[in-house]
Amino acid sequence: MDLQRTDTSPMLSITPLEAPEGIIPIEAGSVTTPQGFKACGVHAGFRSDPNRLDMALVCASTPVSTAGVFTQNCFCAAPVRFCQTQLDTGAPNAYYGSAQAVIINSGNANAATGAQGFERARETATMTAEKLSIDPKDVLVCSTGVIGVQLSIETFNSGLEQAKTQLSFEGGHDAARAIMTTDTYPKTCGCEVILNDAGENPSRCFIGAMTKGSGMIMPNMATMIAIITTDAALTSPDLHRALKEAVAVSFNKVTVDSDTSTNDTCIAMASGLATPDAYLKPETAAYDRFVAGLTWVCQSLARTMAADGEGATRLLTVRVSGAATSEDADLAARSVANSPLVKTAIYGHDANWGRIAEALGKSGARFSQGQVAISLMGMPVCAQGLALDFDEEEALRRFEATEILIEADLGAGDAQTTIWSCDLSHEYVRINGDYRS
Amino acid sequence: MDLQRTDTSPMLSITPLEAPEGIIPIEAGSVTTPQGFKACGVHAGFRSDPNRLDMALVCASTPVSTAGVFTQNCFCAAPVRFCQTQLDTGAPNAYYGSAQAVIINSGNANAATGAQGFERARETATMTAEKLSIDPKDVLVCSTGVIGVQLSIETFNSGLEQAKTQLSFEGGHDAARAIMTTDTYPKTCGCEVILNDAGENPSRCFIGAMTKGSGMIMPNMATMIAIITTDAALTSPDLHRALKEAVAVSFNKVTVDSDTSTNDTCIAMASGLATPDAYLKPETAAYDRFVAGLTWVCQSLARTMAADGEGATRLLTVRVSGAATSEDADLAARSVANSPLVKTAIYGHDANWGRIAEALGKSGARFSQGQVAISLMGMPVCAQGLALDFDEEEALRRFEATEILIEADLGAGDAQTTIWSCDLSHEYVRINGDYRS
Repeated sequence: MDLQRTDTSPMLSITPLEAPEGIIPIEAGSVTTPQGFKACGVHAGFRSDPNRLDMALVCASTPVSTAGVFTQNCFCAAPVRFCQTQLDTGAPNAYYGSAQAVIINSGNANAATGAQGFERARETATMTAEKLSIDPKDVLVCSTGVIGVQLSIETFNSGLEQAKTQLSFEGGHDAARAIMTTDTYPKTCGCEVILNDAGENPSRCFIGAMTKGSGMIMPNMATMIAIITTDAALTSPDLHRALKEAVAVSFNKVTVDSDTSTNDTCIAMASGLATPDAYLKPETAAYDRFVAGLTWVCQSLARTMAADGEGATRLLTVRVSGAATSEDADLAARSVANSPLVKTAIYGHDANWGRIAEALGKSGARFSQGQVAISLMGMPVCAQGLALDFDEEEALRRFEATEILIEADLGAGDAQTTIWSCDLSHEYVRINGDYRS
Repeated sequence: MDLQRTDTSPMLSITPLEAPEGIIPIEAGSVTTPQGFKACGVHAGFRSDPNRLDMALVCASTPVSTAGVFTQNCFCAAPVRFCQTQLDTGAPNAYYGSAQAVIINSGNANAATGAQGFERARETATMTAEKLSIDPKDVLVCSTGVIGVQLSIETFNSGLEQAKTQLSFEGGHDAARAIMTTDTYPKTCGCEVILNDAGENPSRCFIGAMTKGSGMIMPNMATMIAIITTDAALTSPDLHRALKEAVAVSFNKVTVDSDTSTNDTCIAMASGLATPDAYLKPETAAYDRFVAGLTWVCQSLARTMAADGEGATRLLTVRVSGAATSEDADLAARSVANSPLVKTAIYGHDANWGRIAEALGKSGARFSQGQVAISLMGMPVCAQGLALDFDEEEALRRFEATEILIEADLGAGDAQTTIWSCDLSHEYVRINGDYRS
């Protein structure tokens, strides 16, 4: 079955996220932008449409430092458990080590497939290792698609045969297309990072990435698969540390419909080819620059995922400040971003700040309503918990934009956060009310 | 502005909840069914449509035992704070005492209206007391409707004038109509409770109720106002105890869109006229019977509220069993009932149990996926975390029903719960994307 959306709404064009100092965006950057990575996307047959790519392979020249962050869903899928086993360090939520290849299929999630599903994940990793003549312990597998159906080894093998021959240094964009499910467009990103500003030949590295995910997007690694490559040199624990930091303020701050998938996976691989003589170490300016680049890449993709949320006609950014703690800021912003009443109001171009106040109030964040200020698209609509007069026509005009900004100051402290989401449209209902038919 | 829905879908006809032993449902029961209560519904002018009732008054012959349960929303409205003050006992979340009248307006929530809003709530209570020649400390006020607009005292007064003259022992149904917002029909309920089965003349009492609420329905007292009357005799702390018990398994188990309102209020008043010589005391069979009746009334209304959820085409009942704790059962059931992906699948008549598994998995409830069983409309679709073969045509046929039952056994303990919700339809988006225009 083909999980292809047929949105009638046009693709949302959103402004790129501003890059911080020393981070240079690369147009058409992808997982093959950094040195040392090949990739491809092929049609294995998990989908019936022969024109749809459904298997991606990303491969480093040698085993490289690798780190992973995975779904928190109890019903986590077989490939997630397999990757966790491959990158197990013995410590909780600390998955890193070495890997050389990541193979990803779309069309079948290999979730709710039990012991047999896990064995198939392992078997496909072994098949991949044999085909590529690499060590089975250096293969990671990811799956996305329908739940509860065993993965076809035959189909996998058919894709693997092609993938081996098609791996190339230009394959990043095909790979991104192959991992799409209900996404309406492939999602890739890349940047150059100036690691230090000293002299005429500053050291640099590249970061490239691809992701998929447009429904079931929620914190703690929603339905998403993200593969990130870099030619910086980092040990795997340091790469893991950087990845966790970037994910916390990017992929974990996206929510489309409050649903968290069984298969969420974010994997980062560092070839070290750009800075072969020196590992980036935490607490240095170069490492911080790297983290800034990684964060920019992840946030850029996170915004794209929200903007491509199922049926989305608006990218919604919710910024909460003045919270007592970071946790309170997150609760409050997430409550607004997940509220169906807020999301339908945005869809209807309605400056309905009452629904925002309600969502803040029910969030569990601690504040006093008499201290709250809310603004919509830069227009103050509520101060000290009270309605302000505002120009409704001007509000309507501003709400025509494809990027909607809601800001709330809780007046209870200094903590703040940003959450990305989208509106709730008729298309969302149509897509999800008619997913399997 | 008139918050009237224009649903194109017909009113959902749902089967009545089965009454337990000793509870006799009363057709067309209302707040005026029990002895000692008059009520009415009038057009005050909070709404522009002169044919819409927008103020209800419920009045006992004398001050009676009264208990209240209120919204947990931080942004709670002025009338909520006023009622809490009136019924304050000094203990947290213990609101009870005496009251004689409850006056309720729709069309304006008196929320996010600050100190002035609170003063207006107090002022309207005083006006009501004067008009009815009762003690101001025995008046409760409730409001529902638009947020952030000060209540018009003039409009209130106009309604009050009429309300005084129209109070009657048959006014329960008009009162129920007057508190509607986006409800498509008034919601009332009543029963007779056989307090003991001894002899030919068992003692009996009546319970009557009305409620409103169809959007922003969530646990912890969603957008709802419920007024419950009884002619049983209870002290106010015992009435409060019974009310909390009934609300916990009824109104707090309803969720339409996970939004909790600023104005949720549930008030119970006990005239004592049916059993004037004996107060019902906890730990007795008669009290337990009363609680069973109260619970049946609240659950019946809770189901009606879910079935009249904005745009609902299906009543969704989610039953989780086998949970480690009651809290886990609640987390799991609520996660399923709130999932937009589950709700759109129900709308689309899709037996998509994968989305149910995901919702269980992300809920935070503790279980092992290999122990989970799921059934849809009585058809087992998942056992031990694995897909079962089931007859898709038969599933489709069963999904034509207006009442959809999802059951999940987590295999982790003995706790269980039931949550009521509804599907997520195009109508929901239309109603909420176009609320204020």
